[in-house]
Amino acid sequence: MGNYVIGIDLGGTKIHGALADIEGNVISSQIVPTEASEGSEAVLDRIIGVIEKVLETSNKTIEDIKCIGFGSPGPLDAKNGIIVDSSNLPFKNFNLIKPIKSKFNVPIYLDNDANVATIGEFMFGAGKGTENMVYMTVSTGIGGGAIINGKLFRGNTSNALEIGHTTILPEGPQCNCGNHGCLESLASGTAIGKRAIEAVESGLDTNLSKYEKVSSYEVFVEAKNGDEVSRDILHRSLTYLGIGVANVINTFDPELIVIGGGVSKGGQVVFDRINEVVKERALKAMADSCRIVPAGLGSDAGVMGAVALAILESK
Amino acid sequence: MGNYVIGIDLGGTKIHGALADIEGNVISSQIVPTEASEGSEAVLDRIIGVIEKVLETSNKTIEDIKCIGFGSPGPLDAKNGIIVDSSNLPFKNFNLIKPIKSKFNVPIYLDNDANVATIGEFMFGAGKGTENMVYMTVSTGIGGGAIINGKLFRGNTSNALEIGHTTILPEGPQCNCGNHGCLESLASGTAIGKRAIEAVESGLDTNLSKYEKVSSYEVFVEAKNGDEVSRDILHRSLTYLGIGVANVINTFDPELIVIGGGVSKGGQVVFDRINEVVKERALKAMADSCRIVPAGLGSDAGVMGAVALAILESK
Repeated sequence: MGNYVIGIDLGGTKIHGALADIEGNVISSQIVPTEASEGSEAVLDRIIGVIEKVLETSNKTIEDIKCIGFGSPGPLDAKNGIIVDSSNLPFKNFNLIKPIKSKFNVPIYLDNDANVATIGEFMFGAGKGTENMVYMTVSTGIGGGAIINGKLFRGNTSNALEIGHTTILPEGPQCNCGNHGCLESLASGTAIGKRAIEAVESGLDTNLSKYEKVSSYEVFVEAKNGDEVSRDILHRSLTYLGIGVANVINTFDPELIVIGGGVSKGGQVVFDRINEVVKERALKAMADSCRIVPAGLGSDAGVMGAVALAILESK
Repeated sequence: MGNYVIGIDLGGTKIHGALADIEGNVISSQIVPTEASEGSEAVLDRIIGVIEKVLETSNKTIEDIKCIGFGSPGPLDAKNGIIVDSSNLPFKNFNLIKPIKSKFNVPIYLDNDANVATIGEFMFGAGKGTENMVYMTVSTGIGGGAIINGKLFRGNTSNALEIGHTTILPEGPQCNCGNHGCLESLASGTAIGKRAIEAVESGLDTNLSKYEKVSSYEVFVEAKNGDEVSRDILHRSLTYLGIGVANVINTFDPELIVIGGGVSKGGQVVFDRINEVVKERALKAMADSCRIVPAGLGSDAGVMGAVALAILESK
């Protein structure tokens, strides 16, 4: 067994692989389009191709590899290596580990993208040096992961930290999951976009009306431009996000909360409002000892998370 | 170092000590009144007296004792053995471990009552045999503790699982902590009592009016008797409690949630409503694999939790 690992970020548009040493230094990487419409066998072949390619370009063989880590959209049965369902991949109740393991004969680890991003931030990103941290991703949806005493916390069915689906407003808008008032239905990028569309449709006087298509991005832009309606939408959504963060603090008492995903790229306005709400709503001893920071890994977050998963699991 | 432990449940009215073997079989126990008004030195002397008494009545010496575990009302600095503050004990920033350790020269462990009860239920109560469980106590306040992979999860400042202070109704009633819409302000025994008093004061037609003093107990009694106002108060409070439980499921993905404290003694009506709300609001995969049960330890819960803390920490 070797001293290198391979990480694969399996996405709806691209498969991103990297071969790295056990410190996480990338030796070579490879990106190919997923082309999910071609079906599971074709995508599986491309995954195998990416693994072979990063070995070849690093001048390594599979004997040099300790293990391979995969990050994939969920839901997954991580323990058994099964992708249960994924709207952007051609895998349904598909055992990913089996064919990869039978081809390469090294240990294979699989986890969902939120968990993998959590491990990535913990090992290489904003969470370096901490032992207890929570990662929250706020984009289309809201997901998360937790590192407890230096280890990823998975829960009983590998679904822990579905904080996007905690109820924070019992009579709030309906969420995709069917429940009402989930954090995700109030504070995700999708939720911000929805509130913007409702504002335009209700005929409010707002710059948002000039766009053909409105999403959270335009709300951030117009809020910065001084548009009152955009500012109001953003303020309310970020208040709910702050409540979500305060609840995480009161529940996990973490050293650090790392916030990633599109909404976190809104910059200081996002973190300022979160901190205000946390000050109002989280218990002081815990809030004072918890830092809230943006994610540290950029566009390589997915593949570096998969590398981190492989390193963590191989220890 | 011996094969026995001592557990001490430090309460506002009584000090309850027990000497047990490392399986948790109690050899002898002793209860004395706390008499907190006599001050910290007097209470400390009584604690030492209880330890000496359980040794004597078991025919053991301190050489037979592996360690001593303490459960105490918080907030605590458990790591350093300090009782920071306690409304019912004469200890303020009081280092409990130091004098006990210098007297008996064995390892001493201290934790707050919610954590100690969690360990007790995990080792000897409803949580026996699980690896991932959350304990919730619902009485005057709402507190909790979590066992993750067989270990108590404390968080960064030993305050994890302050789930009573998670916000679930942002514009809800003000909580003792200052925040609005905390779970505790909506679903604790105190909250039920408050809603009852408000109902009586507003002149609603209810059996609750006949009592000189109304608390959650009378609400449970009159709801059973068919009083509509009591039923309505209970339904709303238990709905909020169900939301709290659903949020715990979506966050911790536990095998088991154990519910203790006065409100849990309300019986089947409590658990029926919690289960209904969980079905509506928790994600199905997690909800289906999580059992929700009443606490298994009775009036000895405190001391058995302290014994369990000693056993767990000595491993």
